[in-house]
Amino acid sequence: MEDFAKLIDHTLLKVDADRKALQKAVEETLKYGFRCLAISPYHIYVLSKEGLLKKDELCVVAPVGFPNGYTVTEAKVAEARRLLELGAREIDMVSNIQALKTGDLQLFESDIAAVVEVAREYGRVVKVILETGLLNDNEKAVATEIVARAGAHFVKTSTGFVTPGATVHDVALLKKASKGRVRVKAAGGIRHALDAIALVEAGADVIGTSSSVQIIEEYKALRKEFIVI
Amino acid sequence: MEDFAKLIDHTLLKVDADRKALQKAVEETLKYGFRCLAISPYHIYVLSKEGLLKKDELCVVAPVGFPNGYTVTEAKVAEARRLLELGAREIDMVSNIQALKTGDLQLFESDIAAVVEVAREYGRVVKVILETGLLNDNEKAVATEIVARAGAHFVKTSTGFVTPGATVHDVALLKKASKGRVRVKAAGGIRHALDAIALVEAGADVIGTSSSVQIIEEYKALRKEFIVI
Repeated sequence: MEDFAKLIDHTLLKVDADRKALQKAVEETLKYGFRCLAISPYHIYVLSKEGLLKKDELCVVAPVGFPNGYTVTEAKVAEARRLLELGAREIDMVSNIQALKTGDLQLFESDIAAVVEVAREYGRVVKVILETGLLNDNEKAVATEIVARAGAHFVKTSTGFVTPGATVHDVALLKKASKGRVRVKAAGGIRHALDAIALVEAGADVIGTSSSVQIIEEYKALRKEFIVI
Repeated sequence: MEDFAKLIDHTLLKVDADRKALQKAVEETLKYGFRCLAISPYHIYVLSKEGLLKKDELCVVAPVGFPNGYTVTEAKVAEARRLLELGAREIDMVSNIQALKTGDLQLFESDIAAVVEVAREYGRVVKVILETGLLNDNEKAVATEIVARAGAHFVKTSTGFVTPGATVHDVALLKKASKGRVRVKAAGGIRHALDAIALVEAGADVIGTSSSVQIIEEYKALRKEFIVI
């Protein structure tokens, strides 16, 4: 059970999530032993101010360029730098999907490379969100190649703000295209243990979801039912 | 007809809008004489690179902190600065809705004031999006008061990414709370001329919509039917 929780980035990125929801998410992350907690920049600021990010007991994931990804690189760099200063452990940046779809691969790559450079200063991890729900298979493969070349650590399927989110097909495609150079994070619409398991089987190294507690509870029930899992 | 078009900020902010959609939006803005064109930071970069923002014939609106608004002030400032450098004429920034809902009014205000300060350097206009669909009436009034105090030029209802978008109720509320110090932009889900007219009647000074052409065509038909409009 703990091993499965260690694959999950618990997530709370709703715009109207309040202080109580943040507190609950922090407690759930520590109680269940989730890999990390992905929260808004504002909530990272709140936890940092309260001294909660110093102890290194809570791995916090910072969204950058979230969720549209089409902002200027200067904004993503400033955002990443500030969030790393505040104590974020990982950056989940949204790539410039519009640049990719326009065929502006140079900007698509330099945008990622600029954020990777800032993260390197802090020795931190960068995941790059492709928003696979808006891409064709060729775009997904090309983008994964560029993510690897730009020095990021993970390619990630989706923001959760566009449907479809993570699919078995896309995770398998990203895994293959990554050729072992970057890990794969599946996120977007993952609500149940069987879906999470299917995505892990397809090659996902990390699962991003706001349904983490439900997934773990379902996972426990499944283990009772089928000893094999 | 031209007068009505002058109330409309034509809008193209979809993540997967391509180069062709951008071209069409630019042509529509010039042909119909819309007030401005609101496009993504990436598309502002594209138009700027092509020299289209130098001539001052096209008023371009830049989204900042879009659409979630919960990022750090440093990112909004860097984004605004870069987009103003590229030739954006107005800034439509998303306020920090999470800070407002948490009661952190100091940060809510300083976040707006910081972007206003950058825009002042360039002599440009700032509109502040509240995302009224997530707020209660008291929060809307308090937020409008703060927007006016922070020196912004407009208070704006919605991003269009959250429902409900602009309502007659909210526009009237914002208009009253503004006490004439800031203008009101209605945006979010406005698809038809009668809706746009109702919002203008309620006090909207500007209408933001991606259905601008349809609205103008409907408006022309209405004028034929009822000379009074």
